[in-house]
Amino acid sequence: MSNRLQQQLEFALEIDKEKNIFRQTHLSQHGRNENDAEHAWHMSVMAYLLKEYSNEKVDIAKVMIMCLIHDVVEIDAGDTYAYDAEGLKSQKAREDAAKERIFSILPEDQKAELIAIFDEFEDNQTAEAKFAHAMDNLQPLILNNSNDGGDWIEHQVSAEQVYGRQIKTKEGSEKLYDYTKKIIETHVEKGSLKG
Amino acid sequence: MSNRLQQQLEFALEIDKEKNIFRQTHLSQHGRNENDAEHAWHMSVMAYLLKEYSNEKVDIAKVMIMCLIHDVVEIDAGDTYAYDAEGLKSQKAREDAAKERIFSILPEDQKAELIAIFDEFEDNQTAEAKFAHAMDNLQPLILNNSNDGGDWIEHQVSAEQVYGRQIKTKEGSEKLYDYTKKIIETHVEKGSLKG
Repeated sequence: MSNRLQQQLEFALEIDKEKNIFRQTHLSQHGRNENDAEHAWHMSVMAYLLKEYSNEKVDIAKVMIMCLIHDVVEIDAGDTYAYDAEGLKSQKAREDAAKERIFSILPEDQKAELIAIFDEFEDNQTAEAKFAHAMDNLQPLILNNSNDGGDWIEHQVSAEQVYGRQIKTKEGSEKLYDYTKKIIETHVEKGSLKG
Repeated sequence: MSNRLQQQLEFALEIDKEKNIFRQTHLSQHGRNENDAEHAWHMSVMAYLLKEYSNEKVDIAKVMIMCLIHDVVEIDAGDTYAYDAEGLKSQKAREDAAKERIFSILPEDQKAELIAIFDEFEDNQTAEAKFAHAMDNLQPLILNNSNDGGDWIEHQVSAEQVYGRQIKTKEGSEKLYDYTKKIIETHVEKGSLKG
């Protein structure tokens, strides 16, 4: 077996660990906590199905691989909940170290390629990154909405906090942001989000 | 909200159930059973990383969405283990009914589009379908190899059975089939596959 293929398969095996990184979001039907691999799969299918709502035309293959790998660093750094102010402070340093370790398993050219895609997502300047972020926000929202806002209730999240995060959805898709707003308003009315 | 978006989001919520469909394959590090959403995520990342080994040039966006949705029917039909002769007999009828029900949640154009992609995978005639099948076979193989062939031992699988399945890998990628053969030979030597 070539050294190149060996490195690629080693990376493929390494990222299997994402299936053990659990998020705060719960599966629909009041299920268990979701893991990073499932979240990335779901985002990627949604990106494909909802691409007509992107504000700008996107390269859908790039959006899909961006969605699929955007949480790889959490293998080392763990999941940081979107509304965990303390965790968010150290998140960047933890994730930078993880990025270097994990992508270095790949051959040099693919290491550079995947880091570029990962960084493009983080920098959030391109049409693809903005639409991928819209998916990163919308996917847990539809699960949480289906569960009567249970994740928000558990963490006593406020509407203001959710809006703060969903502002990125608007940059990716005005239309999906409109939907998001309605969901937030409904949950404020119901009391599952603090007004 | 438009009726179209409502249908698309309803489908997005429906497929969440794939995270509860468990396979015979175990995660690396002797982990728990893997579910369909995780398997599809893993296959899709591997397709992107290993596309240089496809026998024919592929449209990678199509391969990725094919990998991501190829098991959606198992929400209703359940997972049929590759070496379960009885289950395999009724698999087609169970999966056809599921295909109709689940994809019908989508708007007509997307129902037709996703069924076409799903059927293309099943028919296994195009370069994209053949490479996606190579991933469908390679992904559990690398997990099982990392676990000392535990899944094969548990089900008393023979090398002949594995070769029978991996023949599809060869149609998608000669190079990855060569790797597969070496793994099978190693496990026959070790006794984790019956010779």
